[in-house]
Amino acid sequence: MAEKRQLKLGVSIRGLGYHAGGWRHPDVPSGGAMDFEHFVNVARIAEAAKLDMVFLADGVGIRQKDEPPGSLCRSNQNVELEPITLLSALAAVTKHIGLVATASTTYNEPYHLARKFGSLDHISKGRAGWNLVTSWSDAEAFNFGREHQMAYADRYERAMEFAEVVTGLWDSWEGGAFVHDKTSGVFYDPDRLHTLAHRGKHFSVLGPLSVDRTPQGRPIIVQAGASDQGRDIAARFADIVFSAEQDLAAARAYYASVKGRLATHGRRTDELLMLPGLVPIVGATRAEAQAKHEALQELIDPLVGLSYIYGNFGDLSAYPIDGPVPEPKDPKLRSRAAVMFNLAQEKGYTIRQLCQAIASGRGHRTVIGTPADIADTMEEWVDQGAADGFNIIPTHLPVGLEDFAALVLPELRRRGIFREEYEARTFRGNLGLPEPQNRYTEARGQGTALSA
Amino acid sequence: MAEKRQLKLGVSIRGLGYHAGGWRHPDVPSGGAMDFEHFVNVARIAEAAKLDMVFLADGVGIRQKDEPPGSLCRSNQNVELEPITLLSALAAVTKHIGLVATASTTYNEPYHLARKFGSLDHISKGRAGWNLVTSWSDAEAFNFGREHQMAYADRYERAMEFAEVVTGLWDSWEGGAFVHDKTSGVFYDPDRLHTLAHRGKHFSVLGPLSVDRTPQGRPIIVQAGASDQGRDIAARFADIVFSAEQDLAAARAYYASVKGRLATHGRRTDELLMLPGLVPIVGATRAEAQAKHEALQELIDPLVGLSYIYGNFGDLSAYPIDGPVPEPKDPKLRSRAAVMFNLAQEKGYTIRQLCQAIASGRGHRTVIGTPADIADTMEEWVDQGAADGFNIIPTHLPVGLEDFAALVLPELRRRGIFREEYEARTFRGNLGLPEPQNRYTEARGQGTALSA
Ligand SMILES: Cc1cc2nc3c(=O)[nH]c(=O)nc-3n(C[C@H](O)[C@H](O)[C@H](O)COP(=O)(O)O)c2cc1C
Ligand SMILES: Cc1cc2nc3c(=O)[nH]c(=O)nc-3n(C[C@H](O)[C@H](O)[C@H](O)COP(=O)(O)O)c2cc1C
Repeated sequence: MAEKRQLKLGVSIRGLGYHAGGWRHPDVPSGGAMDFEHFVNVARIAEAAKLDMVFLADGVGIRQKDEPPGSLCRSNQNVELEPITLLSALAAVTKHIGLVATASTTYNEPYHLARKFGSLDHISKGRAGWNLVTSWSDAEAFNFGREHQMAYADRYERAMEFAEVVTGLWDSWEGGAFVHDKTSGVFYDPDRLHTLAHRGKHFSVLGPLSVDRTPQGRPIIVQAGASDQGRDIAARFADIVFSAEQDLAAARAYYASVKGRLATHGRRTDELLMLPGLVPIVGATRAEAQAKHEALQELIDPLVGLSYIYGNFGDLSAYPIDGPVPEPKDPKLRSRAAVMFNLAQEKGYTIRQLCQAIASGRGHRTVIGTPADIADTMEEWVDQGAADGFNIIPTHLPVGLEDFAALVLPELRRRGIFREEYEARTFRGNLGLPEPQNRYTEARGQGTALSA
Repeated sequence: MAEKRQLKLGVSIRGLGYHAGGWRHPDVPSGGAMDFEHFVNVARIAEAAKLDMVFLADGVGIRQKDEPPGSLCRSNQNVELEPITLLSALAAVTKHIGLVATASTTYNEPYHLARKFGSLDHISKGRAGWNLVTSWSDAEAFNFGREHQMAYADRYERAMEFAEVVTGLWDSWEGGAFVHDKTSGVFYDPDRLHTLAHRGKHFSVLGPLSVDRTPQGRPIIVQAGASDQGRDIAARFADIVFSAEQDLAAARAYYASVKGRLATHGRRTDELLMLPGLVPIVGATRAEAQAKHEALQELIDPLVGLSYIYGNFGDLSAYPIDGPVPEPKDPKLRSRAAVMFNLAQEKGYTIRQLCQAIASGRGHRTVIGTPADIADTMEEWVDQGAADGFNIIPTHLPVGLEDFAALVLPELRRRGIFREEYEARTFRGNLGLPEPQNRYTEARGQGTALSA
């Protein structure tokens, strides 16, 4: 019998979870966003569940206290540990799980990022991942000397070159460069040290990087950005695409579109994994799941919902809350806003209803039901060519993750589509992805990586 | 009887130690620079010894393989984990010791740095420190789109403004801002959230920072830069000054100069600690200590010594190795080169001898002797107003640190000048430094920090 295709599963562990009212749930540690122990707890639950990765979304700007809608102090936003710092600490208290941090190509320097993720890959013994984003808000631009954010096309042009530089720097040292020969006194083989000498439109970076070839060959690259340019970056550089697709048809089209671009870059379709976000609200019965959902929705302060879509639609507090959702005006608020607007159109949501829908999972697809219901929709998406797995978006932490691990995972395992134990020593190995060759080793015509 | 003044002691845990040949010593794990376990081991030894801090020097550029002098592959340089990432992982496996990482004001953005060190302070529960440097090499500039490094005055002007922004961002949230009231639904008190809105010559940063007021009020600031401008930054912002003074008279003058500047900023002289570097080579007898030193010197490849002073003097390989040391030509290579040149003048060193001297401790003062000899010189420096403690610079790791802990610390404790146990819960508390007030809390006239 042929082996069933295995799901790859991550979990986004941002803050206290994604649901706007989740922090008020009695079992949520409401000070958790600044408390390392909260994240240790969550990461250990994820690792005990044998998930592929913990994932940290991020932004580098927060809201002012007097910004409309003035309800921000009622939502659990505005406070967030820097993700690379946090994941590095988590690396020391976990052993198997992948560690993915979001970092923006718009507000960083490639040398620093290459070094940080390279270091994290060494520290974690092969479990680092970088979620490459270009950022989307003016609030972030204001913290980096800009009057508003960079134009969309420039941001993506910069992102592409940024990824070239970072992956180039990660090839500074070939496998086996460090011989550490105490007798002869030779520390490394200079023939295996390479200077990138990149000169491009956005960056001039000499190199080399002060970090040896990493345990995964290079850290995993995740890409989150659904536009055409985002897809091109994904096809060229990404190992994983994280998306916020809402329905099967759109997700299939997106899947086909990204996978279809891989060949241009000499890559096979199984060298990139598509992981849409999924917010599971699970109960032993459907009624129980619905009750869980309603209990959460009751915790949402009405104004907080508006603040959740503010970043994508601007301030809608002047519009009637039970009226229709207006089309997003600002062209800078791209694909995420479009996804939300389409959702509202399709379901006939009012502003209030859209807010409530978003507040559950911030725009990710929410599935409410039994373990079998959730497993069914996961299998359907995989079988229909819409996903290779999912990034689980818990409503509230640790509860939403505990529920998923306790209720849904046994069902997936019963169906033979999710692991019982980690298969490999590295994140890349568990994902079943090939180790990239060092470009210089390849150019020498040495078939396999020397570090293997 | 009056309590004796207590020494504050850190240890620099860069790489495999500071001695150029140290990595070839049989007890040094020569792959340690990329191996997290090596640093865990070293940090745990330092914490068991009750030292105040582990300290990571850093640079953001390495040497090319073909740069003169071409001996680099024989020294244990060119490979280094990114220090904030490394310290964050160490935070998870230590409990008491301060964690100080070097980061350059020339190649970073203040928002990122404020967030990273703020996060590290939360993750470590009050043990983060930032060693503020302006960097000194062109090799670093080349990795950040520059043809050469920024002019000296610009670098320091930027550094001063950088520190203003970072400390300003750290005050974004007053103590007690986060109320997390599940019943009323109020997550934070907006009156305790503040927008920096900095607009200066080098930076425009709106804020606020997404990190709550940290356990230490703010992370410890270390400053390493001996010039006049460096001293001004120290007097205004630093909690610790790390220096490379070689002799008592110069160290006393430096000490007086920095401490004398504090009053201008409304600070008391005991609010800043001066910690010169000290390379101890210790044996039960002087002969044993000398023998240890000679054994290390024998491990230095002759060309490696030259590479150690290359960054400060440029390439001296065309000069006779047994001839006099030429005056540093390049004005960009400031105070560190001057310190080395003065040392050579004073001791009548040839280039070879200077290299050997530097190779032991890279320009830091080396003391070779018995535990009593080393304790004597430490006490003398403190009693004479040249130091408040020391940053220990081990020749090789973990051995140099183990020797110091096993041999010198008992002698310091016998004399009653170093702790038996940590006194406080935070790094700042152990240093005996006051918790800085949040500027807005202060402006409200609320005498003590609300987080206390
Ligand atoms: C599923 C998903 C997750 C995202 N997560 C983040 C994030 O954590 N931080 C961020 O700055 N941007 C995030 N983005 C947005 C990216 O910054 C993206 O580059 C931006 O939306 C504009 O690109 P696009 O139009 O290609 O989506 C995300 C986008 C998607 C689709
Ligand atoms: C004891 C000491 C340690 C230093 N450590 C570092 C370091 O780890 N990284 C770095 O980039 N610069 C370091 N520096 C140099 C600083 O970058 C400094 O800003 C530069 O030397 C020029 O300033 P100055 O003339 O004030 O010393 C150090 C300087 C001293 C005196």
